[in-house]
Amino acid sequence: MSDYTPPLRDMRFILEDLGSLADVATLPGLEESTSDITSAILEEAGKFAAEVLGPLNQSGDKEGSSISQTIVTTPKGWKAAYAAYRAAGWSTVAAPLEFGGQNLSKLVATPLQEMWQTANLAFSLLPLLSLGAVEALAHTASDEIKKKYLPKMISGDWSGTMNLTEPQAGSDLGAVRTRAEPQTDGSYRVFGQKIYITYGEHDCTENIIHLVLARLPDAPPGVKGISLFVVPKFLINDDSSLGARNDVQCVSIEHKLGIHASPTCVMVYGDKGGAFGQLVGEANQGLKYMFIMMNEARFSVGLQGVSIAERAYQQALTYARDRAQGRNAVTGEDHVPIIQHPDVRRMLLMMKSRTQGARMLAYAVAIHFDKAQRHPDADVRKQSQMLVDVLIPVVKGWTTEIGNDSTHLGVQIHGGMGFIEETGAAQHLRDARIITIYEGTTGIQALDLLGRKLARDQGASLKLLVAEMRRDQELLAAAATPEAAELAPALKDAIDALEKGGRTLLIVGMGNMGAALAVSVPFMHLIGNVCGAWQWGRAATASAAAIKTGKDDVAYYKAQISLAKFFLTHVASACDSLVKTVAQGGPVVASFPEEAF
Amino acid sequence: MSDYTPPLRDMRFILEDLGSLADVATLPGLEESTSDITSAILEEAGKFAAEVLGPLNQSGDKEGSSISQTIVTTPKGWKAAYAAYRAAGWSTVAAPLEFGGQNLSKLVATPLQEMWQTANLAFSLLPLLSLGAVEALAHTASDEIKKKYLPKMISGDWSGTMNLTEPQAGSDLGAVRTRAEPQTDGSYRVFGQKIYITYGEHDCTENIIHLVLARLPDAPPGVKGISLFVVPKFLINDDSSLGARNDVQCVSIEHKLGIHASPTCVMVYGDKGGAFGQLVGEANQGLKYMFIMMNEARFSVGLQGVSIAERAYQQALTYARDRAQGRNAVTGEDHVPIIQHPDVRRMLLMMKSRTQGARMLAYAVAIHFDKAQRHPDADVRKQSQMLVDVLIPVVKGWTTEIGNDSTHLGVQIHGGMGFIEETGAAQHLRDARIITIYEGTTGIQALDLLGRKLARDQGASLKLLVAEMRRDQELLAAAATPEAAELAPALKDAIDALEKGGRTLLIVGMGNMGAALAVSVPFMHLIGNVCGAWQWGRAATASAAAIKTGKDDVAYYKAQISLAKFFLTHVASACDSLVKTVAQGGPVVASFPEEAF
Repeated sequence: MSDYTPPLRDMRFILEDLGSLADVATLPGLEESTSDITSAILEEAGKFAAEVLGPLNQSGDKEGSSISQTIVTTPKGWKAAYAAYRAAGWSTVAAPLEFGGQNLSKLVATPLQEMWQTANLAFSLLPLLSLGAVEALAHTASDEIKKKYLPKMISGDWSGTMNLTEPQAGSDLGAVRTRAEPQTDGSYRVFGQKIYITYGEHDCTENIIHLVLARLPDAPPGVKGISLFVVPKFLINDDSSLGARNDVQCVSIEHKLGIHASPTCVMVYGDKGGAFGQLVGEANQGLKYMFIMMNEARFSVGLQGVSIAERAYQQALTYARDRAQGRNAVTGEDHVPIIQHPDVRRMLLMMKSRTQGARMLAYAVAIHFDKAQRHPDADVRKQSQMLVDVLIPVVKGWTTEIGNDSTHLGVQIHGGMGFIEETGAAQHLRDARIITIYEGTTGIQALDLLGRKLARDQGASLKLLVAEMRRDQELLAAAATPEAAELAPALKDAIDALEKGGRTLLIVGMGNMGAALAVSVPFMHLIGNVCGAWQWGRAATASAAAIKTGKDDVAYYKAQISLAKFFLTHVASACDSLVKTVAQGGPVVASFPEEAF
Repeated sequence: MSDYTPPLRDMRFILEDLGSLADVATLPGLEESTSDITSAILEEAGKFAAEVLGPLNQSGDKEGSSISQTIVTTPKGWKAAYAAYRAAGWSTVAAPLEFGGQNLSKLVATPLQEMWQTANLAFSLLPLLSLGAVEALAHTASDEIKKKYLPKMISGDWSGTMNLTEPQAGSDLGAVRTRAEPQTDGSYRVFGQKIYITYGEHDCTENIIHLVLARLPDAPPGVKGISLFVVPKFLINDDSSLGARNDVQCVSIEHKLGIHASPTCVMVYGDKGGAFGQLVGEANQGLKYMFIMMNEARFSVGLQGVSIAERAYQQALTYARDRAQGRNAVTGEDHVPIIQHPDVRRMLLMMKSRTQGARMLAYAVAIHFDKAQRHPDADVRKQSQMLVDVLIPVVKGWTTEIGNDSTHLGVQIHGGMGFIEETGAAQHLRDARIITIYEGTTGIQALDLLGRKLARDQGASLKLLVAEMRRDQELLAAAATPEAAELAPALKDAIDALEKGGRTLLIVGMGNMGAALAVSVPFMHLIGNVCGAWQWGRAATASAAAIKTGKDDVAYYKAQISLAKFFLTHVASACDSLVKTVAQGGPVVASFPEEAF
């Protein structure tokens, strides 16, 4: 496996050349998001990711986490890496101020998270899940619970988990059966089995705080009867020291295709009389609380698409530069590095342009997270929230599929070597395979996009998005170099296709909801491709301006314009076809007889 | 892992409803290819595949082949399954009559091969490689060598291997360094190392016959100096009994992403003074001999795309029918099998329509193999050979990519369960990952298609193909039911796109060869999609006729027309976009600066 090099230049391009940092620095509480401070943070984080996390990625995959009785052991190096992560304060950056966090902007927290994930996806899930649990508690729990759990979770002394899935309840949380029995002291006894619990048990922290969805005895059936409980591995004394072991155990871990180092646990609650738990927030509001967290969680997993694609790209690029083979088809020179072969170049550009396109989109969404939370103007907050809501399923659904396809191409560039595990390219493919599934499959993202986001507001948020795109498209048409400006018509075509596709989908859905749902994923790919084109349009405009004003590093800016062109002719070129599928492809799916499959 | 059910109905549709069997039964030597006999063979083979090979697929993956010193042990059950395969005579069906083979038509041999591969891809490589070696010898070796080796190879007593790749020579065989020193008795001593040798060593046969590419001392450099040698594991006495162990050894096997049961060997020749070998055919003609075999080998691997897609589909379909989860979006019924969810249906149809589309294409190519070899009219032979030549890179390049994508969708349909190895869906994904690489990567297929097949004859074979398509499109326009006939315009659009894409590509190539090569894979996807649409057009025409004439099983025929419609609106719909990429996407790839990647 090749080393990981943090893509700081590409990140800086987004933060500075695209004006992202300047945009959030105007928000209350983020005035210190200066270029200098941010650069310093990113460089430190990059060093940590490259030097501490990256080197453990392959060995962690090979060794995997293991279980003996109920004790889970993470791979060699894991404990030390986690201790270093915690010591450097990385667990605090994105957490709320009140309990020891640094409350960094989402815009700056995003590249950090990207780097942890790229360096070592399996490791990164430990702090990711903890942060999710921190945010869930911070948003919904009582002050008593917050005070009890948050400081040590934010410091990284304790980790957190999310316990949703049960064997009979995967995507369908209404089917959850785990139950919680109220006790006279106001606490609860929790009983049930949860599966797919990431880092449900491990040896990196002294305590593990489980957030668990369960039903109260008198709960209504379905999703309206689910409550959220906090269940610690070790009980916590009043002085914050650890007490007795709670009645929750990991009984097995899964043998998975990828992310071997991340233990995926089957957790049993209440096998010995009931696990002590406390109700978080109000009874029967568990699903609502989960949904508050959903955008954050889906954003993070979407970003994993960028991460794994970046790692696969770096590895493939290193190989393509090193491996000499065959003849240059144009010059005739023999025994050339395979990066000279046109199709290898095409694959590398496919990886690079989609990765950076998806990165630009994710960071743009991060800005809207920040604005939705902090902007002084309520209208701006509302508009930003609309954009977050409509774009999250795209970031999750589209980017994770791109991530998978990039790892496929990464193996392909390696040829036969890619199929040999030692090379490391195959690990990325294996690791990536979960990201289109967890936190809601691609199909569920598309359903969310169509059902919750588009149909509910009759396309208002899509209209808002398209208006943003059109404004940027006009800027591209007036770009400072002809190479950039000449890309404007192709971007316009893409935006037109999205508008047409969205309108068509709503019409299809009015007549035949099943048919509309059957093309919801093609529609999600359409919106994803157009979002990528939009971001590349912005990149081309900014790059043309940089070239025009005589900025250094002109080669970099020229390359961005070429990448924009590549994206438009190799990726966004699919938009018209996707509109065709959206318009015509639904009914045949909806009406195909079940027995004819 | 779900059981394997041979898709005999879909095979019979191609052989009978599409008139394929009737087509080859007119060829000299194939008069006995009647429907009855063929059905009986297919059923027997299906039983063997389902009952003997299929059940070993997952256990073979889990156990894998292992090596101790130089002894390779295949997984439990392998030896017995191979013995049963041999005893049933399956090793003889596709081999030449003269040495004990049955010389079955390619059209009938193809579904058999498909079934072995679908049931157990890792196992199927053993007979596949043997057959390749048999055919290489049958086409090129002296009578003495043929008599010495072929009978026992065809009977299955001995297996065969192909030794091409060396560490520094992957796709570039000109770089081969293995050398062969002539001896006074007319034999040779072979020295060198070969990698990626499938079943280079194993415990299923008493001898292994290696075909090895090597250089003679006075050979010219590059591809013109490569000769083919036959090197047995055990020397063979004049009475055909086995003699001393030859100086060839397996020194290690690879730890691979998939096909774990198939040992991928590093072979060392001549470590103890030289491996005994005999020259096959003439000196320095090795590459030419390999190319004779190339079409067959690439066809077989292309068919593996159909096979693995079929297996992934069957497994996903079983799961989608069994797994209950969530609410039917149209009826509101709760806890329904996930096959009712529109996007699950879409994924299943994507798998099914492409698998059968690729199968129809492969079987159509098989007919042209048969005609090119056996048709009495030289013009027909020549035209069929042209079609074989232009379509082989499509069968290999397009179908193997489809195979990979289908295994991706297969995992996706399983949700979280798909990521758990025990389920078996992930094995298909891992196994499939090699098929776009071995026997020439997708990029090499596209290069072959563009460089050797299109540019060389200035598009003549493409024209021939398009003419065939147009004839069938007219039949579709006149189909016996309106549901079929109304698909004709979409098929016409697809064929038009192919014609336009081919013309455009030749023009791009005249101005900028690098740019044309950079879009050769998108062009290959274009031709693949149009070929699939063409085959589905034929299927719709035939199905409409069957419905009209009141044939039984009308539901099956109606489903074929729906599948044709699905393919046209979800797959062939991409054709216009691919033409756009072909027309506009090349120069930016060719000109992107190497240092800007």
